[in-house]
Amino acid sequence: MVRFLLLNGPNLNRLGMREPHIYGHTTLAQLEKQLTEFASEYGAELTCYQSNYEGALIDQIHRAESLYDGIIFNPGAFTHYSYALRDAIASVQTPVIEVHISNIHAREAFRHQSVLAPVTAGQIVGLGINGYRLAILALLDMVEGKGK
Amino acid sequence: MVRFLLLNGPNLNRLGMREPHIYGHTTLAQLEKQLTEFASEYGAELTCYQSNYEGALIDQIHRAESLYDGIIFNPGAFTHYSYALRDAIASVQTPVIEVHISNIHAREAFRHQSVLAPVTAGQIVGLGINGYRLAILALLDMVEGKGK
Amino acid sequence: MVRFLLLNGPNLNRLGMREPHIYGHTTLAQLEKQLTEFASEYGAELTCYQSNYEGALIDQIHRAESLYDGIIFNPGAFTHYSYALRDAIASVQTPVIEVHISNIHAREAFRHQSVLAPVTAGQIVGLGINGYRLAILALLDMVEGKGK
Amino acid sequence: MVRFLLLNGPNLNRLGMREPHIYGHTTLAQLEKQLTEFASEYGAELTCYQSNYEGALIDQIHRAESLYDGIIFNPGAFTHYSYALRDAIASVQTPVIEVHISNIHAREAFRHQSVLAPVTAGQIVGLGINGYRLAILALLDMVEGKGK
Amino acid sequence: MVRFLLLNGPNLNRLGMREPHIYGHTTLAQLEKQLTEFASEYGAELTCYQSNYEGALIDQIHRAESLYDGIIFNPGAFTHYSYALRDAIASVQTPVIEVHISNIHAREAFRHQSVLAPVTAGQIVGLGINGYRLAILALLDMVEGKGK
Amino acid sequence: MVRFLLLNGPNLNRLGMREPHIYGHTTLAQLEKQLTEFASEYGAELTCYQSNYEGALIDQIHRAESLYDGIIFNPGAFTHYSYALRDAIASVQTPVIEVHISNIHAREAFRHQSVLAPVTAGQIVGLGINGYRLAILALLDMVEGKGK
Amino acid sequence: MVRFLLLNGPNLNRLGMREPHIYGHTTLAQLEKQLTEFASEYGAELTCYQSNYEGALIDQIHRAESLYDGIIFNPGAFTHYSYALRDAIASVQTPVIEVHISNIHAREAFRHQSVLAPVTAGQIVGLGINGYRLAILALLDMVEGKGK
Amino acid sequence: MVRFLLLNGPNLNRLGMREPHIYGHTTLAQLEKQLTEFASEYGAELTCYQSNYEGALIDQIHRAESLYDGIIFNPGAFTHYSYALRDAIASVQTPVIEVHISNIHAREAFRHQSVLAPVTAGQIVGLGINGYRLAILALLDMVEGKGK
Amino acid sequence: MVRFLLLNGPNLNRLGMREPHIYGHTTLAQLEKQLTEFASEYGAELTCYQSNYEGALIDQIHRAESLYDGIIFNPGAFTHYSYALRDAIASVQTPVIEVHISNIHAREAFRHQSVLAPVTAGQIVGLGINGYRLAILALLDMVEGKGK
Amino acid sequence: MVRFLLLNGPNLNRLGMREPHIYGHTTLAQLEKQLTEFASEYGAELTCYQSNYEGALIDQIHRAESLYDGIIFNPGAFTHYSYALRDAIASVQTPVIEVHISNIHAREAFRHQSVLAPVTAGQIVGLGINGYRLAILALLDMVEGKGK
Amino acid sequence: MVRFLLLNGPNLNRLGMREPHIYGHTTLAQLEKQLTEFASEYGAELTCYQSNYEGALIDQIHRAESLYDGIIFNPGAFTHYSYALRDAIASVQTPVIEVHISNIHAREAFRHQSVLAPVTAGQIVGLGINGYRLAILALLDMVEGKGK
Amino acid sequence: MVRFLLLNGPNLNRLGMREPHIYGHTTLAQLEKQLTEFASEYGAELTCYQSNYEGALIDQIHRAESLYDGIIFNPGAFTHYSYALRDAIASVQTPVIEVHISNIHAREAFRHQSVLAPVTAGQIVGLGINGYRLAILALLDMVEGKGK
Repeated sequence: MVRFLLLNGPNLNRLGMREPHIYGHTTLAQLEKQLTEFASEYGAELTCYQSNYEGALIDQIHRAESLYDGIIFNPGAFTHYSYALRDAIASVQTPVIEVHISNIHAREAFRHQSVLAPVTAGQIVGLGINGYRLAILALLDMVEGKGK
Repeated sequence: MVRFLLLNGPNLNRLGMREPHIYGHTTLAQLEKQLTEFASEYGAELTCYQSNYEGALIDQIHRAESLYDGIIFNPGAFTHYSYALRDAIASVQTPVIEVHISNIHAREAFRHQSVLAPVTAGQIVGLGINGYRLAILALLDMVEGKGK
Repeated sequence: MVRFLLLNGPNLNRLGMREPHIYGHTTLAQLEKQLTEFASEYGAELTCYQSNYEGALIDQIHRAESLYDGIIFNPGAFTHYSYALRDAIASVQTPVIEVHISNIHAREAFRHQSVLAPVTAGQIVGLGINGYRLAILALLDMVEGKGK
Repeated sequence: MVRFLLLNGPNLNRLGMREPHIYGHTTLAQLEKQLTEFASEYGAELTCYQSNYEGALIDQIHRAESLYDGIIFNPGAFTHYSYALRDAIASVQTPVIEVHISNIHAREAFRHQSVLAPVTAGQIVGLGINGYRLAILALLDMVEGKGK
Repeated sequence: MVRFLLLNGPNLNRLGMREPHIYGHTTLAQLEKQLTEFASEYGAELTCYQSNYEGALIDQIHRAESLYDGIIFNPGAFTHYSYALRDAIASVQTPVIEVHISNIHAREAFRHQSVLAPVTAGQIVGLGINGYRLAILALLDMVEGKGK
Repeated sequence: MVRFLLLNGPNLNRLGMREPHIYGHTTLAQLEKQLTEFASEYGAELTCYQSNYEGALIDQIHRAESLYDGIIFNPGAFTHYSYALRDAIASVQTPVIEVHISNIHAREAFRHQSVLAPVTAGQIVGLGINGYRLAILALLDMVEGKGK
Repeated sequence: MVRFLLLNGPNLNRLGMREPHIYGHTTLAQLEKQLTEFASEYGAELTCYQSNYEGALIDQIHRAESLYDGIIFNPGAFTHYSYALRDAIASVQTPVIEVHISNIHAREAFRHQSVLAPVTAGQIVGLGINGYRLAILALLDMVEGKGK
Repeated sequence: MVRFLLLNGPNLNRLGMREPHIYGHTTLAQLEKQLTEFASEYGAELTCYQSNYEGALIDQIHRAESLYDGIIFNPGAFTHYSYALRDAIASVQTPVIEVHISNIHAREAFRHQSVLAPVTAGQIVGLGINGYRLAILALLDMVEGKGK
Repeated sequence: MVRFLLLNGPNLNRLGMREPHIYGHTTLAQLEKQLTEFASEYGAELTCYQSNYEGALIDQIHRAESLYDGIIFNPGAFTHYSYALRDAIASVQTPVIEVHISNIHAREAFRHQSVLAPVTAGQIVGLGINGYRLAILALLDMVEGKGK
Repeated sequence: MVRFLLLNGPNLNRLGMREPHIYGHTTLAQLEKQLTEFASEYGAELTCYQSNYEGALIDQIHRAESLYDGIIFNPGAFTHYSYALRDAIASVQTPVIEVHISNIHAREAFRHQSVLAPVTAGQIVGLGINGYRLAILALLDMVEGKGK
Repeated sequence: MVRFLLLNGPNLNRLGMREPHIYGHTTLAQLEKQLTEFASEYGAELTCYQSNYEGALIDQIHRAESLYDGIIFNPGAFTHYSYALRDAIASVQTPVIEVHISNIHAREAFRHQSVLAPVTAGQIVGLGINGYRLAILALLDMVEGKGK
Repeated sequence: MVRFLLLNGPNLNRLGMREPHIYGHTTLAQLEKQLTEFASEYGAELTCYQSNYEGALIDQIHRAESLYDGIIFNPGAFTHYSYALRDAIASVQTPVIEVHISNIHAREAFRHQSVLAPVTAGQIVGLGINGYRLAILALLDMVEGKGK
């Protein structure tokens, strides 16, 4: 069975409560539930994890190599400066798809650069929480050797 | 019926022939055929257009407002400097999803910036030609009022 | 008789339809009609041309040398990157006045620089479509050898 | 009756004496006389003021709110660094049109940026002293609610 | 009763021991005691927390929304790069006052920029540990609806 | 008796009239009256001075060395470019506290840098006119040798 | 027989008419005639093409792969910003030699950078129209496997 | 007896598994064993610690002041942005030697700057895991008052 | 008789009182007396003027054209940003020699650039108050047509 | 008889031995022999000189004015920083053609800028050692008054 | 027998005489003697060379390929701009270890960048003259195939 | 007896021959003769030296410490990049006065920065060859303990 890790970074525990005009009204718990069901429909098992600690996210990525077939990762603000997360991603074979709920290119200048993007498989940006679903489809496509 | 425009920019007529280690082996004709069928499965009609002329792409975007419900747009190298295309996108209500076949953030520095991204609805990057299919799904999700 | 060329660049065919809070409600057709009449009151014949193609605008500027006594040019977004248009302007003796409807210095950073300004005779910025009328007056003043 | 303030900044008292290949041969006194008559033809009263003191110019702008319907302002070199003048302009409702006799974009790099432009109504640049006359016409157009 | 959170970031556990010519001789324990008493005089309850973990500080800020009426925050070196803390602050309604013991603008270049300042209510910089007392007064003023 | 100088720079004479959504509704005269009374409660005599002239502010700072025990200084836009004021502050022993009513770090980019901050004793930013009161308290704390 | 394409970009149709102190007095027609004869002496057939349209030049480069053994390309001002032309050159196997009539490094700063140079075979700069002849010789040398 | 702390930062737990062409095949456990023995030969006791948490590394550095005579520190990617670690190092008297296994100056641009280097005693870069041994020798030299 | 103007800018009235480790112990009055006598020995009449007002310095430079044969100018901190003073110097024929008492290139970064230097005849920097005497000699050399 | 100087800068004595994938297999001695013969066929005498000393190259350029009709110069890495060589070239009337064997624009960023190019007659880049032959032809063309 | 070259660049002949607070009191002669003995203990022969001429250092590096097994190189200030030395190092197979006596990252900004580092085997920085000894050990480790 | 060294850097052997509109018509031999006589009138012995080799200039500066009381140094283009010369100057006690014949701030941008200025005693710029005479006077003033 295909197994994926849904990884959410800092402040995403506040989803649905924080700046809803930017991030929408769905809470993290609701999102995780929806996505688990969605993955399940496609025969994939989704494990969900969120942390505000850079170190905890690094640990999860390391563990992913032996546990998961792919990672859907919304790194929150770590996107813009965590070279340690970048190295963690580069150190595993597991493909990572970077997801951003809002269109980070239409916001503050510091959000325009992702230090992780060069080592991820791809990015899905600005498509709301639907972006997570598309990331699951993208990983499925990769795992099944289709596409490109 | 939902109608979408698939817009491909400069050099994408060379798809499948040009640098296959970066862009894969599918030709533009094959891609357009595949995507038209894919869209059709979801009840959407896809119109395909490619040009190496910035002006021709601007004209297409202007026409889209009355003809299409969404645009899937791979702007090729115009991504990085065509402020005229940016203004064209901003001048229409039709949502535009920017697609890049390769992970532009893992390539030359000039490819890291998209001057179009701030006015598009979202971006799908680095997921090969599968990215186009995900963009179709994303537009369907928008048109049907779901997501976010 | 004095002859002027009114040249409008990319997306100005959308005038009156596009972002009216920035560009107003007058359409390009209405604008061209108003300005032709205005020029006519001052004994000047106005030829109007708009294109979304950089190459077409370059061609027009080249032709201007033998056909017109001055050019009123709103280059749209080409203002900010078209060094080819800059070279075209520099290659003809015909004076060019650069017009921007909105105050480009109060908008996005990329709009603050005009690569054309160093080779135009002058710029009129932020005064709405009235800026075009002032440009006609400025050209008349130049042609009649007054001013400065 | 419509009342305008003609405000000239540092070194413009040297007009006609200073670098005539750039600024022409008309003196400030002659310019003020010409423009007063020109405004008068259009039913507008023009008050003229010049100072080399940033503080004095700020004071004039503050007073303008209750005394004038518009300001024609050539800020001289203050254009490029006086954020205090910028704040003064932003602090009043009176519209300000920035005028530069020479084409500042064709001169030294430091002259290419105007820190005032984002808070003025518009700019007229490079059209010689005729630019002042056009600015008067522009203000008349604004006051009379026409244009745009 | 008014409740405030005193939040100290990385290395502030070393206060009084670390570079006393810059940070003085008061230890963190002494500082927390003094400020608790000071707040108490004004009828405010002060909760004190220090951590060298970015994640732990983010968690505290999240909790603050329901527990405290304001936060006095010395983010230490996180000031200069923790966009995750910035997002945490922006995600809560609780006002945050940023305090720096030393005059960060008179030190190394990297200390001149605060990535948090744009989303805090205000900053008090360079006034020694007295700055914390002033921050308490500032929060009281806000909570009681005075000022500004 | 302790004597302080309240120094307000360019455009602060417009306080209460200028952009009230940023600077509030209290006029400069009201502010000076409030602060004089506030200082008086703490046994300090406050002298108030405002000017739009950089030179006049420099003169006041020079005089402060023999007349005052501290300066509360809101330099307005001079904050961002007046190296002459910086030199004036550095040339006297009298401590200067820089006050900004609004959070300058949440506004235009040019307001993010203070060329004065490196030579002032400290800065209080974004706390409204309450910031002036806190500055008085900070100076009292310094004069009385407490703090840090 | 060896076949080469002579490709001239924007404004080169004005050769001999435009700024002769920079570009000399030979017209494009004369140049093309001279070079065709010159190539012919070396047994090479030269096809000549000029356009002010970026898209038309891209189309020519695409066609070159099957039609020509090498391209002599003076891209005019597109040299400095046309990443689309860069991609076109990179997408074909045909070697391209970039020619500039004037010494672009002795002119305005924007002319110092060629975005095409990294993907061309080489550049010949500043040697007048003789540079075109040298480029033909260079291509002959490449085609015949000599050199390096 | 001389006591040293071997501190390894984020992703170094993956040593030997991660990108062996860059970091070699020795695992962290093997490295720690080798270095402990090596130190022991020189009469020094080596304590080993690795963490992916910035906060945990800061805590260790604080503790070092009373427990160790020197620190051998490979900060991993924290090298390039952790000003909090920089402050931690600056806050203790214990000398720190920064070690990088690979030649960071021959890799991506972001790896060329170390924000820690200015406050460490020295750096040993690019010499493989032998660099750790040299760092032990360097600390011994310092502790024994030799060198320089 | 040869007549020179000694012009001192902001804060130089504090000479001898302000930061004597940088500027020495001679007061401005003493300096002016010494230099007047020194000039007198060479048959030159020296007029002395100091102001903290940019506008007053501009006025003096304008007047210099008809009154003096040369200007010795220490612009203080205006050196680094007063483009208005630059324009004033450029607007007169009178040669200006820029003098700085301290070596501005060995101090803060903002002091390394002089916006006036391009339009002055020359600069004498870092030679203490002797620099003023050398400037008088330099002007004498120019006036008498010697040198170069 | 026409006389040219072939000048090769630092590390070109290693030609044929150094990085052959970049610079080819021809040694400097072979190159000099080939080019001398090539020049001879065109009736030109070629003098060859190579040095790793900037000073020695400057001396040669100075001597060239009276001895040679042109210089073919491959400045090696001095291309990118030797302003002293630039001044040497500018100080003589003899035309200099800059030659680079490899395409410096396709290599490291520091190689993209030539500080010499603005004062040379032209540049031939990336065409292997054939570039030297083309440079000889270019000089012949100049000396014989043809071209341009 | 293993043979190493100790190469010292500009101003290192002044060692022990020049700024001893930075570089210590050992003279170059003493250093060379100490290191020769140290190398000898490890069975390595050390040849010492110092020059203030960039060209002479380049020559030595070229000769090293056939004469030495490794180079210990302190390039002095050439570290920061000599791309010619960089090319020399890249042109030989002999490994080079870059040594800096002082911590260049704790000094002036221009010393923070080494243009040589990307092509050296590694760097040892800030460890005093002991750094040279460690470099010898590092080379021995390389030559003997150990490490990494 | 006072002894000074006149040191001239690269290309100054071409003085009087090279670009006379910038550097005048006096040759180096004439200049050295004039200055030797001038120094002699003031009881100072002047030794003259010129070289195009950076290394030779460094050697001279090193020797100066025991042989001369001051150095008059025109470093030519080394001014702008020779950090090795900067270190040489910093390594000796002998005061150095930097002289430039032309006003380097009115020429190309690269000439605006002197990397030597921070470690010289002072600079005399733009005063023609008279600048050398003033430098001799300045050194005399320093040696005799006057000034400042």
